[in-house]
Amino acid sequence: MSSEATGMFINETHTSAAIWQYRVEKMILEGKTKYQTYQIADVPRFGRSLFLDYNIQTSIMDEYVFHECMSQPAMTLHPNPKKVCVCGGGEGATLREALKHNTVEDAVMVDIDEELVDMVKVHMPEWHQGAFEDPRTTLLHTDARQWLVDHKGYGFDVILSDLPNPHEDGPGQFLFTKEYFQIAADAMSEDGVFAMQAGSANENYPECMVSCIETLESMKETFPYVAGYFGIVTTFFQPWGFVLASKKYDPLALAQEEIAKRFAERGVQTRYYTPRFHQAIFTLPDYLLEAKKNTARVLTDKEPFVWTA
Amino acid sequence: MSSEATGMFINETHTSAAIWQYRVEKMILEGKTKYQTYQIADVPRFGRSLFLDYNIQTSIMDEYVFHECMSQPAMTLHPNPKKVCVCGGGEGATLREALKHNTVEDAVMVDIDEELVDMVKVHMPEWHQGAFEDPRTTLLHTDARQWLVDHKGYGFDVILSDLPNPHEDGPGQFLFTKEYFQIAADAMSEDGVFAMQAGSANENYPECMVSCIETLESMKETFPYVAGYFGIVTTFFQPWGFVLASKKYDPLALAQEEIAKRFAERGVQTRYYTPRFHQAIFTLPDYLLEAKKNTARVLTDKEPFVWTA
Amino acid sequence: MSSEATGMFINETHTSAAIWQYRVEKMILEGKTKYQTYQIADVPRFGRSLFLDYNIQTSIMDEYVFHECMSQPAMTLHPNPKKVCVCGGGEGATLREALKHNTVEDAVMVDIDEELVDMVKVHMPEWHQGAFEDPRTTLLHTDARQWLVDHKGYGFDVILSDLPNPHEDGPGQFLFTKEYFQIAADAMSEDGVFAMQAGSANENYPECMVSCIETLESMKETFPYVAGYFGIVTTFFQPWGFVLASKKYDPLALAQEEIAKRFAERGVQTRYYTPRFHQAIFTLPDYLLEAKKNTARVLTDKEPFVWTA
Amino acid sequence: MSSEATGMFINETHTSAAIWQYRVEKMILEGKTKYQTYQIADVPRFGRSLFLDYNIQTSIMDEYVFHECMSQPAMTLHPNPKKVCVCGGGEGATLREALKHNTVEDAVMVDIDEELVDMVKVHMPEWHQGAFEDPRTTLLHTDARQWLVDHKGYGFDVILSDLPNPHEDGPGQFLFTKEYFQIAADAMSEDGVFAMQAGSANENYPECMVSCIETLESMKETFPYVAGYFGIVTTFFQPWGFVLASKKYDPLALAQEEIAKRFAERGVQTRYYTPRFHQAIFTLPDYLLEAKKNTARVLTDKEPFVWTA
Repeated sequence: MSSEATGMFINETHTSAAIWQYRVEKMILEGKTKYQTYQIADVPRFGRSLFLDYNIQTSIMDEYVFHECMSQPAMTLHPNPKKVCVCGGGEGATLREALKHNTVEDAVMVDIDEELVDMVKVHMPEWHQGAFEDPRTTLLHTDARQWLVDHKGYGFDVILSDLPNPHEDGPGQFLFTKEYFQIAADAMSEDGVFAMQAGSANENYPECMVSCIETLESMKETFPYVAGYFGIVTTFFQPWGFVLASKKYDPLALAQEEIAKRFAERGVQTRYYTPRFHQAIFTLPDYLLEAKKNTARVLTDKEPFVWTA
Repeated sequence: MSSEATGMFINETHTSAAIWQYRVEKMILEGKTKYQTYQIADVPRFGRSLFLDYNIQTSIMDEYVFHECMSQPAMTLHPNPKKVCVCGGGEGATLREALKHNTVEDAVMVDIDEELVDMVKVHMPEWHQGAFEDPRTTLLHTDARQWLVDHKGYGFDVILSDLPNPHEDGPGQFLFTKEYFQIAADAMSEDGVFAMQAGSANENYPECMVSCIETLESMKETFPYVAGYFGIVTTFFQPWGFVLASKKYDPLALAQEEIAKRFAERGVQTRYYTPRFHQAIFTLPDYLLEAKKNTARVLTDKEPFVWTA
Repeated sequence: MSSEATGMFINETHTSAAIWQYRVEKMILEGKTKYQTYQIADVPRFGRSLFLDYNIQTSIMDEYVFHECMSQPAMTLHPNPKKVCVCGGGEGATLREALKHNTVEDAVMVDIDEELVDMVKVHMPEWHQGAFEDPRTTLLHTDARQWLVDHKGYGFDVILSDLPNPHEDGPGQFLFTKEYFQIAADAMSEDGVFAMQAGSANENYPECMVSCIETLESMKETFPYVAGYFGIVTTFFQPWGFVLASKKYDPLALAQEEIAKRFAERGVQTRYYTPRFHQAIFTLPDYLLEAKKNTARVLTDKEPFVWTA
Repeated sequence: MSSEATGMFINETHTSAAIWQYRVEKMILEGKTKYQTYQIADVPRFGRSLFLDYNIQTSIMDEYVFHECMSQPAMTLHPNPKKVCVCGGGEGATLREALKHNTVEDAVMVDIDEELVDMVKVHMPEWHQGAFEDPRTTLLHTDARQWLVDHKGYGFDVILSDLPNPHEDGPGQFLFTKEYFQIAADAMSEDGVFAMQAGSANENYPECMVSCIETLESMKETFPYVAGYFGIVTTFFQPWGFVLASKKYDPLALAQEEIAKRFAERGVQTRYYTPRFHQAIFTLPDYLLEAKKNTARVLTDKEPFVWTA
C-alpha cells in the first residue's frame, strides 16, 4: 500500500521495534492538563480520536470494542448490578456501557483529570452519549484509589478500573497492584465483580496483562474466580487485554443463552461483546499462557509494574 | 513509551490512517528480485524478519502463528492428507507445517520467485527447517495458477494458497478470484480442502478477507463448506484473515478431541493452532460479519480485488 | 545527536531524497483557508512557525533572514523608494522591512488569502509588528497579478514578489513567468527595482531559481540588471534563492559604504543583510552557475515552472 | 512537494526541532566497526552516501563542497606545502584534495577506523580516487592525537583535522580542545597552517563552530591568524563550518589572483572553493558573529565541547 509522506502526524512508540505515525487530518484541540498531554484529532478512517501523552486512547471507529470489553463482561456476570463504580474512564464510554443495564441505580465515576473530562464532554459526545447527565451518575474528580479507601464497605456490585497504563513516571503504577485490588475489593459487595484494562495482549509485551492475572489469582480468598480476556482494537494495532476478578460468580460458566437473556431483560445491546462471542474472548492464545508461566509476577506497591520500551 | 528517533527503518503504510516505522537493527540482505523488493533484516524484539515491497511478511518471533494458521486447519480437517500443494509460500514455513503430518507422501511447493527462495534457504533457516530437502518435497519456480491449470485432476488432498496480497500493479489480483479458486478445486481430490491467506482481519480494511469468503461461498457446488478464521499476528500489528473451503468436511464440526487425536496420530505439534483453540479462531467478531454483509462481493478475473490505501 | 521519537510532527517532503519531520510542541491554530492548509505552531528551538500546505514558511528564529533578503537589497538599491508594492507576503514581514525606509509614502500589499492574513495579525505579531496599521499601508485581498495588470503605469519604485512556489496544482505557476514579470515592470516607474523569492538555492533543486534568473535576463530591454542572491535560512534546511531585476541601477555596483549611508539616512537597521554582507550574498556558488548553464530555461505562461519531487 | 511514505530510511536527528528521514534506494553495506555504526547506501538524488552513527557524512552529489573546504583554503594559503597530515578523513577525499597540490611530497593520513577505511576503498572509489595508492601517501590506523604527540617537531606544513563531531560518549571531545590544537601546532612547521571541520554553521547550533574559533583565537602566540569559514553542504541540510588557524599567513589577505596563480602552478582544479569564491566563504553572517559573542568559550580537555540535542 502506498501513501503520502507529507502531512501532520502523531508519533507513538510501540516498544523498540516500531514507531507508529498516526496521520491527523484535523486537530480539534490539543494541550496539556495538569496530568497529561492530550490531542483530540480527526484521523483518516479512524475518525475522531483521543491521544494522551502521544498514545492513542480511542477512536470513534472502534471505541465500542474497548468500552464493551471494559464494561460488559463484568456487568453481565453480576446477576443484579445496582451500584457501579468506574475508576478513570475519562471519555465517559465505560460509564455509558455500564448504564445500559437498567438494573443500575447508582453509578459513580472517579476520574482525576477534570480538565480532560470537560473537553471530552464538548468534543467527544459520541463517547459519553449523555452518560454524564444521567440522573444515576455521580461524577467526581479526585484520586480513585484514595476515594475507594474512603468508601470501604460501600458495597459496589461492580468496579470497572479503566485507568492509564503504569508508565514509569506516572501514578498509574499504584493502580495495578495487589494493594489497590484489595482496596477495590473492600469497597465491593460480597458478590462483587471487578474488571480492569490490563495493557496489551499481543505477543510482544504481554507482561503487564499476565502479571495482573497472576496478582489477582494470588488473592484466591478475595477473588475465587479470575479470568483474562481480550478485544481486537484495530485503533491500537494490537489486541488489548482485560482481567475480570469475581467474588462469587464464574465468568467461564456463563452460558451464551444466559447472557442473551440478561441483555434482553436489562435492555442491553452490543456490537462486539455479543452473547455468542463471550466464549471466544475468554479463550486466550497459548502465547499468553506461556507468558504467564514465564514472566508474570505478583505486583505490589513495593514492586509495581513499570511499563518500558 | 518513549524511544529513540535516530536509526534505520523500513516504513510500511497501513491505509491512509498510519505509517509504521519498523526499526532495523541489522540489515542482512536487501535488493530486488525479478518480482519484488526485499529486505531480510533483524528488528528489535521481532528478530529476523522479511519485508517484501516494504511490507513486513514474517518475523521469527511469531511466524508460527501465521504459518500454523495457513496450514494446520486444512491439513487437520482432511482425514488422510497425502498429496499437498503449497502455492507461493516462499519462506518454506507453510510447507514445513504441512510436512509435520506424517500422512503426507507428496508435497509440491510452487513459488515463482526463485531468487527469493534461494535467499530464504540461506538466511532464514528457522522458517523452512529443512523442508526443502525433505524427500517428499518437490520445489518448483513457475506461475502457480498456470501450474494448477496444467495439473487439473492431479488430486491434491490439500491446497494451501500462501500468496501475496492483490496489490494494484501486481499479478496477485488473479490469485484471489473465483476462476483461480475453481482451478485449484479442479486440481484437488473429491474430498479436498483448500485454505488461503486472505488479508487483514482488522476493522479497518476487512474487504479483501470478506470478499474471499463471499466468493468461495458463491461456489456452493464445489465447496459446500466455507469458513473464515483469523490469527493474531503481532508482527503485522493486526489480526490476519484466512479462509478455508472444503469439498466434503465441515471445519466447524471438527471437535477438539478429534484434532488432538489426529495430531497425536500424525506426530503434529503446534503452538498457536492447538486443539483447544480451533473453536476460538473460527469465531469471527461481528465487525467481520457486518463487513461481509456490507462490503463483500464475488471476486472475478474481470473484477478482481485491488488493494488500495 | 539523539532524540525522542514520540510526539507531534509536521512532515515536509524535500524531493525524493528526504522527508523532514518538524516537531510541534504546541499547535496554536490549524485548518484550511480557501487557498491552502495552514498550521501556526511552536517548534522547539525555532519557536512560533507557520506551515502552508505542510511546508514550513517561516519561524520566529530566523524570519529576519528571509524577509530582509526579500526586501532590503531592492529597497536599498533604489535611491528614493516612495511607492512600494508587496505581492503576497502574508505574514506582513516583507512589508515591515520595506516600511523601515522612511522614504516610503505609499505601500500596497496584495495578498489573496484574507483568512490567513487575519490569523497572522493575531497569532504572529512579531512578523508584522504593526505594519498593517501603518498609515502608509494599503492592504488588499485580491489576485496580485490581475491587480498589477489593472495598475499598469502606477509607477511603483519597488515591487517585492513574495509569492508561493509554483506547485503543480496551484496558481503560483503564473507568478513565475516572463508575462508576469512584464506586468510587474509595467506597473513600475522608469527606474523601478523588482525582487522576488525564487525557490531553493541548494544543489539539489536549483532549477526554479536559475530559471527565474534566466527569464529575467531574457528581458534585457526591460531589466538591464539582473542578479541572483541567496540567504541562509536555517528553518528551511537550505539556502534560499532570490532574484533582483532592475531597470536602471546595478546591484553589483552598490558599495558597502553607500548601503551604510542609505541605511543611516533612512533609519534602517538589519541583522542579516548588513552593508558588509551585500557582496557575499550576491556571490553565487559555482553549482548555481553550472545549473543555470545546464538546466535553466525561460519560463512563460505556456511553459511555466512546475515544482515536483 | 509530495512523496511516497513507504520505503527504507535512515533517520537522523537535527536537534529537538526536527528529524530527517533520508530515503535509501539501495543499501550497499551496513554494520558496525569497532568505533561506529555505518551505512554505505544509495540515496535518491544524492547518490552513494555514507552514514556514521546514523548521521550522514557525505554524498557523491556534493562531497566536493565539504572536501574542498576541508583542504583547499589551508593548502592554498601555504606558499609551498610539502608535508601534509590529514587527521581522520576516512573517505580519503580530504587526502585527495591535498594531493592535488603538486608541491606535496609527504602526505600522512591517520584514521583510527581501519575497517571503515577498508570498506571505503572498495565501495566509495569516487572519494579517494586512488589517493591511498599515491606514492606520497602514508596511511596509518591509530589515534590521531597520540600520533601527533609522538611526532612533535615533525614539521608539517599543513594539518587538516577532518574528525567526527564531539559527541557525548565519543572520543571526539578531545579533538576539539586547546590542548589538541597545541599538539597539532607542535607537529607543524614554523609557518604551518591548520584547518578543521568545526560543526554546523547554521543559526540553530553554531556553538561548536564559534567555540572552535574562540579557542584558536585564544592561542594568539601560536596562531596569529584565525578565521572561520563555511561551505553550503546540501547533503547536510545546512551550511557547514570550518576554521583555519595559521602561524604566519593571513587567509583574509589572500587575493583572488594569487589563489588562481597558485592553482595554476600546482595543477589544482576545484568546483566549490574557486578563486572568486574565497572571499565569500570567509564572510560570515552576523548570526555567527553574534553567537561567537554570546555563546563561544575556550574549549579545553577539562571542559570540552559536548554535542547535544
